[in-house]
Amino acid sequence: MVIVLEKNISEDKIEAIIKKLEDFEFSVHKSTGVEQIVLGAIGAHPNFDIRKVKILDGVSEVYRITEPFKLASRSFQKENSEINIKDVIVGGNEVAVMAGPCSVESEEQVSEIAEIVANAGAKILRGGAFKPRTSPYSFQGLGEQGLKFLRKAADENNLVVISELMDPKQVHLLEEYADIIQIGARNMQNFPLLKAVGKSNKPVMLKRGLAAKVEDLLMSAEYILASGNPYVILCERGIRTFETYTRNTFDLSAIPVIHKRSHLPIIADPSHATGIRDKVLPMARAAVAAGADGIMVEVHNHPEKALSDGPQALLPDQFSELMKQIKLIAEVIGRKM
Amino acid sequence: MVIVLEKNISEDKIEAIIKKLEDFEFSVHKSTGVEQIVLGAIGAHPNFDIRKVKILDGVSEVYRITEPFKLASRSFQKENSEINIKDVIVGGNEVAVMAGPCSVESEEQVSEIAEIVANAGAKILRGGAFKPRTSPYSFQGLGEQGLKFLRKAADENNLVVISELMDPKQVHLLEEYADIIQIGARNMQNFPLLKAVGKSNKPVMLKRGLAAKVEDLLMSAEYILASGNPYVILCERGIRTFETYTRNTFDLSAIPVIHKRSHLPIIADPSHATGIRDKVLPMARAAVAAGADGIMVEVHNHPEKALSDGPQALLPDQFSELMKQIKLIAEVIGRKM
Amino acid sequence: MVIVLEKNISEDKIEAIIKKLEDFEFSVHKSTGVEQIVLGAIGAHPNFDIRKVKILDGVSEVYRITEPFKLASRSFQKENSEINIKDVIVGGNEVAVMAGPCSVESEEQVSEIAEIVANAGAKILRGGAFKPRTSPYSFQGLGEQGLKFLRKAADENNLVVISELMDPKQVHLLEEYADIIQIGARNMQNFPLLKAVGKSNKPVMLKRGLAAKVEDLLMSAEYILASGNPYVILCERGIRTFETYTRNTFDLSAIPVIHKRSHLPIIADPSHATGIRDKVLPMARAAVAAGADGIMVEVHNHPEKALSDGPQALLPDQFSELMKQIKLIAEVIGRKM
Amino acid sequence: MVIVLEKNISEDKIEAIIKKLEDFEFSVHKSTGVEQIVLGAIGAHPNFDIRKVKILDGVSEVYRITEPFKLASRSFQKENSEINIKDVIVGGNEVAVMAGPCSVESEEQVSEIAEIVANAGAKILRGGAFKPRTSPYSFQGLGEQGLKFLRKAADENNLVVISELMDPKQVHLLEEYADIIQIGARNMQNFPLLKAVGKSNKPVMLKRGLAAKVEDLLMSAEYILASGNPYVILCERGIRTFETYTRNTFDLSAIPVIHKRSHLPIIADPSHATGIRDKVLPMARAAVAAGADGIMVEVHNHPEKALSDGPQALLPDQFSELMKQIKLIAEVIGRKM
Repeated sequence: MVIVLEKNISEDKIEAIIKKLEDFEFSVHKSTGVEQIVLGAIGAHPNFDIRKVKILDGVSEVYRITEPFKLASRSFQKENSEINIKDVIVGGNEVAVMAGPCSVESEEQVSEIAEIVANAGAKILRGGAFKPRTSPYSFQGLGEQGLKFLRKAADENNLVVISELMDPKQVHLLEEYADIIQIGARNMQNFPLLKAVGKSNKPVMLKRGLAAKVEDLLMSAEYILASGNPYVILCERGIRTFETYTRNTFDLSAIPVIHKRSHLPIIADPSHATGIRDKVLPMARAAVAAGADGIMVEVHNHPEKALSDGPQALLPDQFSELMKQIKLIAEVIGRKM
Repeated sequence: MVIVLEKNISEDKIEAIIKKLEDFEFSVHKSTGVEQIVLGAIGAHPNFDIRKVKILDGVSEVYRITEPFKLASRSFQKENSEINIKDVIVGGNEVAVMAGPCSVESEEQVSEIAEIVANAGAKILRGGAFKPRTSPYSFQGLGEQGLKFLRKAADENNLVVISELMDPKQVHLLEEYADIIQIGARNMQNFPLLKAVGKSNKPVMLKRGLAAKVEDLLMSAEYILASGNPYVILCERGIRTFETYTRNTFDLSAIPVIHKRSHLPIIADPSHATGIRDKVLPMARAAVAAGADGIMVEVHNHPEKALSDGPQALLPDQFSELMKQIKLIAEVIGRKM
Repeated sequence: MVIVLEKNISEDKIEAIIKKLEDFEFSVHKSTGVEQIVLGAIGAHPNFDIRKVKILDGVSEVYRITEPFKLASRSFQKENSEINIKDVIVGGNEVAVMAGPCSVESEEQVSEIAEIVANAGAKILRGGAFKPRTSPYSFQGLGEQGLKFLRKAADENNLVVISELMDPKQVHLLEEYADIIQIGARNMQNFPLLKAVGKSNKPVMLKRGLAAKVEDLLMSAEYILASGNPYVILCERGIRTFETYTRNTFDLSAIPVIHKRSHLPIIADPSHATGIRDKVLPMARAAVAAGADGIMVEVHNHPEKALSDGPQALLPDQFSELMKQIKLIAEVIGRKM
Repeated sequence: MVIVLEKNISEDKIEAIIKKLEDFEFSVHKSTGVEQIVLGAIGAHPNFDIRKVKILDGVSEVYRITEPFKLASRSFQKENSEINIKDVIVGGNEVAVMAGPCSVESEEQVSEIAEIVANAGAKILRGGAFKPRTSPYSFQGLGEQGLKFLRKAADENNLVVISELMDPKQVHLLEEYADIIQIGARNMQNFPLLKAVGKSNKPVMLKRGLAAKVEDLLMSAEYILASGNPYVILCERGIRTFETYTRNTFDLSAIPVIHKRSHLPIIADPSHATGIRDKVLPMARAAVAAGADGIMVEVHNHPEKALSDGPQALLPDQFSELMKQIKLIAEVIGRKM
């Protein structure tokens, strides 16, 4: 922590501040400059609330100099984390593709879509059985039955399954039927849920919240890692801004930012970020060009009849075309698909 | 729903769109203007996803004309909801004051603070036993033991208790020890949690999320109301913006906005909105002047030793002074305290 | 500037960084902690681009420790700046009220409104002659003719005039007809305009831009101050956020923040911040309760016929009632009106 | 305009509203649904302030159904606008590359960089002579002398020149030395400046403001178009959000959104959007993959000595590599470079 003192501060006040810092168990270095005095406070308090110093008399500014996350940090682990899920690797050189319907609606629906996405080259099947809906009157998902349909569809097409968990008490269901447990954007800071998946041995994909800084996302990842589960995948899916033409603002710069700060893989979800089909294609391409470790896209064979998010689902032909394009873009930056 | 068609659209396309709307079970009215044709689609589909129409060929814009919430709406109930908690009324003419420490830290701490806030005139004691912390390494609260201390301190000072619930499976604990169950900002769209308190008969205070529009807040309230619990109190506690001098941006305009849209009471929490003590006083006054039905503020007798959020806690003397000021401001707008 | 080095950095890299800092003419102090090394770089470079250090090999984080503004800072001048405009003082103990129509529309209109606002107790008349409109097809103001009407109406009612400047080449017109020159939110970073009013000897009211942090506002004030004009008044008028029920989000916390950071007076404009009449009253009260040095509100005798912003203008009776309320609220915090 | 009336509204109120709308010269259609009555108001008032209707007694919601811009709209002109600047076309099939230093610093500097960018394949040279700097103490540009150096460097390398205009009275200088006049983000709503370039016959590149919705950007373009200049190029350069790891949030979704709404070309500027060199490369690739009509990037041969924005400038080798990558990406989506 670095503490900038007010100009023309008295010696008494400086001493009082140093005393206080020592009470907080920091060791203090004082640097006297031409215009200002700066204190360096060093100690092992990664989560010290710096506002405790900010309010001391004579203090002008305080900066935390250590990242608040540890296990998620690139300085903790230099090499990229590669998450192995059966034969699929997320975070390696290959760009991962997660595709499927927003919600599992019926056995036939998910089975047909699974075949479509597998044929186009995707290796991971997505589909929601527990759906976080802003309205209590909207379709809330098929629950365990949905997970069964999803698992069956995946197995028939040699796909890996990702599905969302909303309630800590349902972890066992996800562990039984899914290969990757998804934590949705609205639950990014649902700490009991993070602790629950932290105790699982299944890989977890953690989506960035609508108001979450990249740092907040990494702090939530830290919850899972600190609870004992090292298999964390991050996902950028758009943040909330003032722009209204798109549902959210897809923050693709977060991809290189996360690659620098953390060793964890980062997936991009253009379907939720933009909310409308014809924006999904260019944004999926952009995500791969920006270096994403994978993309998650919604695909539906009858989107006009989908029980949720049909308008943002790609049609089967669009998805096949997208797969061809992103394969070529991946090659431009030395990756494969 | 109102559908604006593209200029110079062909008759065939118009018919196809009308057909589609009828398939969705809307009845359709067509208005032909000089420059543009507008369709009105009327029917009982409060949660119809308007993007399904937005993607149809020939459609330029689509507007939902009904509010997505019903039970929370002022058009559903004209009179203000008054929530009775023992002898305290929230949402009536009296401005409610909820005060106390951020976290319950010990029996002595909460007991001393309860006495301070009761003496200054507050009727509701706040204190967290389950704490949502961004870091897994921070103090996570005393749990049930904390609730016991809080209850005891409240009872000794004739106060009503509000405390936060984080996990659906702990509803019974809050029901046992608290009078009002708080849902925190980060859980505003934790739908299993909303359903859980919706089945409780205790009043619930729902805090606005950092990225939540007022409409989203009212939709989350709708979850609780639709689950059967009519005792919902809303709380504005700051939204996330680009400004960095304050922790969040306190959106006080939300107070008159909510009073117009909804019959539910709205409390303002300047402690979390600003994050630093000397901003809490002016913002608490401003909230009352703006018409808030109450305020929630953090008070601590030894904030420098607080285990969480000490820097935003008011000192006992500051709190007493604040109580005097807001009493006078309440009178200016015809309310009392 | 404080530079945090990467963990386990080599001695060679440290030396290279120190050498670079010395080339930039900083004197460098090195603090070696248990986990990390921190460099303090001290020197007289208030506007040094810290990203130049951020990109050096081995650097983890860089913090600027001096405020980028000087003349606008509370540390440069401890006492509040009081701006005298004829008999009116802005920034003193009295809460200033600026009221009048959005645009000057005719001699009669502004004359009638001037009488209304003077009778209600306001001392400063607002009215736009050059209007910044988002659409090229909207009413753009009466220009010099409007300024003449405004001046006349003010003189007849013993009021001081504030009006907006949009083009540097029209400074002389504002100097001739107005007492305070307003710089609008959209021009907050129009640097030629800031320099132009910086060379004037008229007081300037600078409105915060829609995307401006408080720091940016103070930097723009610095432009005016550094150009030689010490008479700067700041104005909060709402920032752009994701909320859509209000036109902008009124950031009232900026008032105490600015009072701490700067000696310049801060006015609040609830009319532009909220954009709709019935939100203006509670927000004007809130602004005074939060400690604003004044408010600016739009008043119109026939708002339904106003050529601009009629829907946010207060009716004469509402304005009189507001004046009574804010007088009482000002007294609660030891100020007068 | 579509007006949704309050439920259970009386016949008298409906008639009063219709009367008012007719006074505003709209023709009104009434649709009576099961739950609600909706009025359609049609007429030629593209810039009618809908809040005038919003405040009428009995009105629940009002929606503008026509875009507020006309000349900038895709519905006004179906085909893409191709802007010809000497031999270069912006808005055609070819992806345009604008590259060069942030500021013109000396004859040698801009001459060397011009050669570098020309050799790598760029056809448009950027460089600022008038610099909008947030601090009055920062380098403000070389002025006319800078424009001369820029022109000379461009001519020697067969490049087209783009440079920024800040003050309406300097339009003639830009017209003399530059081929494209740039309007910076902070001046996007500087209406006198927009009108000034609207009267020029030089192409104008208009950058999106930090708080500007896509709609606002198109409205500012409308100012230029309505003033008589049809040669408008748009530029996305990042918007302001809560994220702090990057300088701004690069809103790449704006590219397909603008392509749908408008016929004007859209360029992406990853240098200003991200603010740091190692984020520029992935974001430039992403912009091309998203369908941008061109990119603008800063290149410097000695960025560590640059007088402005050195840390975001690409090194010559990085730029050459980038040119190769984006050429390949452009081909993937059927474009060339």
